[in-house]
Amino acid sequence: MPNFERSQIDALPQRYRANLINGLSGFKSAVLIGTRSLEGKPNLAIISSVFHVGANPPLVGFLMRPHTVVRDTLQNLKDTSQCTINHVHRDFFVEAHQCSARFDPDISEFEACGLTEQQTAISQAPYVNESVIKYALRIQSIQRLELNGTELVIGEITELCCPNEVIGEDGFVDIESAGTVAISGLDGYHSTTRLARLSYARPDVFPSKID
Amino acid sequence: MPNFERSQIDALPQRYRANLINGLSGFKSAVLIGTRSLEGKPNLAIISSVFHVGANPPLVGFLMRPHTVVRDTLQNLKDTSQCTINHVHRDFFVEAHQCSARFDPDISEFEACGLTEQQTAISQAPYVNESVIKYALRIQSIQRLELNGTELVIGEITELCCPNEVIGEDGFVDIESAGTVAISGLDGYHSTTRLARLSYARPDVFPSKID
Repeated sequence: MPNFERSQIDALPQRYRANLINGLSGFKSAVLIGTRSLEGKPNLAIISSVFHVGANPPLVGFLMRPHTVVRDTLQNLKDTSQCTINHVHRDFFVEAHQCSARFDPDISEFEACGLTEQQTAISQAPYVNESVIKYALRIQSIQRLELNGTELVIGEITELCCPNEVIGEDGFVDIESAGTVAISGLDGYHSTTRLARLSYARPDVFPSKID
Repeated sequence: MPNFERSQIDALPQRYRANLINGLSGFKSAVLIGTRSLEGKPNLAIISSVFHVGANPPLVGFLMRPHTVVRDTLQNLKDTSQCTINHVHRDFFVEAHQCSARFDPDISEFEACGLTEQQTAISQAPYVNESVIKYALRIQSIQRLELNGTELVIGEITELCCPNEVIGEDGFVDIESAGTVAISGLDGYHSTTRLARLSYARPDVFPSKID
């Protein structure tokens, strides 16, 4: 049944293997991380590795590769312990993707990619004005994963900006109606169509649609 | 601008807060984890926290909450260091969701939820026959995150089962055409429509569609 044994994966050309393995984790979040350097320079980076860590306290995590285009973001996180997480929406996913280009450190990705900075009283890191759903994190831990040298960052939410009309009565966030996109692989962007929300699963009865 | 400051989030009712915070990480992967106990009993659990860790070596990570319905899965991972990751597709997302019900430990989620076990020579953990894209992991590390007691599991891919027709010339996996679904929040299931694959970003030129 398997069409790739491990030795075959290891023998693949680097770029082919990167595309293949990046596709296997399924659909991923598309967010822009906003940070500011100690000198006050804004920075934006797109990542697809954000994941839920916990709701109480509200914790969010993501992985970063230290020697890639996100090295400025990682330094800012270490220096300031602050960032914003901004959902990428369908009307600016091309601009968001462009934030992954390797700009000179003195160039703001906001300006170079056509996005707009936004501030709040609580977050010193810049928000993306064009983003509908966004929040600020105070970094709680940055740890290096020995297996491959990536850095695991976990932060707690300090404030949330999310239109009331996309939050349901039970707290469900309709990120689809907000226009949030999903990523597949390294460069695939997708809009979504909700199949269903399903009821809480119980052993004795099959789930039913709750929307 | 913010409509939730941190103190307001902390004051929310538990279920409302769980829905709200789980929606903020964006679209998530929908996969079933297959494991086997030391006594040989199969187990299936649905999770939405799988994320890409690295392509060389091919590493995949996920988070588990130790005191929830996945406690049997976590024990099996610790006992056997093996699991399978099976993409959830649109034609069995209800059955997959049902795997989150709290069945008695001696009940197989495969049987209870109407899914079929599949074996390979390499993996002792069971695959889901209905899944189109699936792979086996050898667990490399399980570590407790001190911030909230969740367990971070990282495994390396030992074999991959993925139809050749969904793999592009450059290794891109068309998980959309394979029928893989995305999750939002705790219980939202979504099919997808590809907006574009975008070219590798360079500072001097805006990305173009490559599909």
